[in-house]
Amino acid sequence: MAVEPLPPGQRPPGHPELLSPIFWRDGRVVMIDQRRLPDVEVWNAYDTWQEVARAIADLEVRGAPAIGCAGAFAVALAAPTVKTAFGLRGILRQISDTRPTAVNLGAAVHRMANAVTAGRDPVAEAQAIWDQDLASCRAIGAHGAALLPDEGTVLTHCNAGALATAGYGTALGVIRAAVAAGKRLRVLCDETRPFLQGARLTAWELAQDGIPAEVIVDGAAAHFLASGEVVAAVVGADRIARNGDFANKIGTLGVAAAAATFGVPLYVAAPHTTLDPNMATGSSIPIELRSENEIRRLGEREVVPAAAGVRNPVFDVTPARLVNAIITETGVYRAPYAFE
Amino acid sequence: MAVEPLPPGQRPPGHPELLSPIFWRDGRVVMIDQRRLPDVEVWNAYDTWQEVARAIADLEVRGAPAIGCAGAFAVALAAPTVKTAFGLRGILRQISDTRPTAVNLGAAVHRMANAVTAGRDPVAEAQAIWDQDLASCRAIGAHGAALLPDEGTVLTHCNAGALATAGYGTALGVIRAAVAAGKRLRVLCDETRPFLQGARLTAWELAQDGIPAEVIVDGAAAHFLASGEVVAAVVGADRIARNGDFANKIGTLGVAAAAATFGVPLYVAAPHTTLDPNMATGSSIPIELRSENEIRRLGEREVVPAAAGVRNPVFDVTPARLVNAIITETGVYRAPYAFE
Repeated sequence: MAVEPLPPGQRPPGHPELLSPIFWRDGRVVMIDQRRLPDVEVWNAYDTWQEVARAIADLEVRGAPAIGCAGAFAVALAAPTVKTAFGLRGILRQISDTRPTAVNLGAAVHRMANAVTAGRDPVAEAQAIWDQDLASCRAIGAHGAALLPDEGTVLTHCNAGALATAGYGTALGVIRAAVAAGKRLRVLCDETRPFLQGARLTAWELAQDGIPAEVIVDGAAAHFLASGEVVAAVVGADRIARNGDFANKIGTLGVAAAAATFGVPLYVAAPHTTLDPNMATGSSIPIELRSENEIRRLGEREVVPAAAGVRNPVFDVTPARLVNAIITETGVYRAPYAFE
Repeated sequence: MAVEPLPPGQRPPGHPELLSPIFWRDGRVVMIDQRRLPDVEVWNAYDTWQEVARAIADLEVRGAPAIGCAGAFAVALAAPTVKTAFGLRGILRQISDTRPTAVNLGAAVHRMANAVTAGRDPVAEAQAIWDQDLASCRAIGAHGAALLPDEGTVLTHCNAGALATAGYGTALGVIRAAVAAGKRLRVLCDETRPFLQGARLTAWELAQDGIPAEVIVDGAAAHFLASGEVVAAVVGADRIARNGDFANKIGTLGVAAAAATFGVPLYVAAPHTTLDPNMATGSSIPIELRSENEIRRLGEREVVPAAAGVRNPVFDVTPARLVNAIITETGVYRAPYAFE
């Protein structure tokens, strides 16, 4: 059997306290099924790269850094099974193509290909990617915490948390680090249609840490940004262009426009693996379109009439001019951005 | 029995072609249950004011002008049953209090009270409110159609359509009139969480009229406004202050901020009954908070963890500076607004 169910509460080797959505243990990939949260905590162990690739495509694991780790582990599972460089290339392509927008997935797979070609241990290389992501998140948290005031409400969109990374999170890493430093913060979580990562995942992981979290519909973000209550908006990124334009979950651009309109600072938290030196601006970032059914159906009900169409882009691109700062593991960057 | 089911396709007396969500016929109120659309078309006839008031509170009927009509018809049902002015006052209060944000409901009930006090026929007065709303919508459509280009995509939020009025609609009235004048328009409908009026109602009534409609998540509005595809955003209003600030369904403010950020004109379409001369600015408009369960539950599933909170304001207030024009039955108004 390629997928074995595991009991709740799985933690990565060597990190007994860390919520990590995906890690390597004893030759297998362990993952929490993020589609089932928050009502059910389902963990599985995977033995094949095909099942890991399917899990990426089906959003069992999501979040730019986390799918980078998933892609790396998938290659680590695939490498011993292939005989030729040609065979490996086909597999790498299949893994990379599961999700187009986040640069981390393609970059991690590319790094793994180089490691395999150079004869390095693929498992060690994938684990290094995971270790590096966790360290980056903790450094992002430390740099970003200083930007937040001592108390107030922070708004976030989607889930740029532990569940989107090797652990700790990017945007939520900033909030975690600020709270750990004694700041009294509460978090407004956009529910983030259509997949509800904010309601299901962000609120769940913040509640696990005892950080006060409240869920709002995406349409309410502007209302709270205009109200004076919100001191900052903090989001993650799936791909950042050299000029600071960035792709993130659909709805981020609306948060950015409202934050700018009402004078609330917008901070983007992401590791350097999310920077794409091949993109001069955000206009060339590929935007993933997903199934109409994510919008047409609510539970068992068809909520869009059959005679109407549906368009479901799941990322948008925010121009750098709407961003107050980009927080990476190497520090806090402000315009004009010139990433390489 | 206070509520009698009726077959699909009900139309108001004298208007065999008009989709109207609420009308008076043979001493009863006929209404479509908007909670059940688009998958089921349920009509009912109501004999008591209590059932009509409950229908307003439960969102069986919604939309500022439509709940104005519902309040008027409820008073028409109540008037013959009360013996004293004191008794009538209590009923009027109960009807008015079902929904706080739209000014139309309170204003219609107030007008009905004056008619009853003056000894006028309450049924004729309520019917006059309905007739006037339909005429206003058609005039709004005629004035507003001229603002739209000959072709392109128009974005709308929530449902400011036939289903929100006596018939024809305000924002959708503008689109209907433009299409009737030969303009080639297609409509992007924000799904409008949490109640999905855009997906369920706007897409349904546009499809019935053969106007191309596509549903997007609310978070995607900014993406399409930034893309250059959208030529205008047109929305309704639940209450307009003297200075042009207006309350509308939660999410309207985000559309307005994104439209202004990306240079897309925002038009507000509403009858004079939506103007509130008692409000100098939008800051004093009461914002209705509804049940957490509208966000916590999706079908049968709990999508927000129990440990997290929920905030569910269902309207927001857009400042006049983000509005390009307000379209009423008397013409097109631009800043500075000075309504009376």
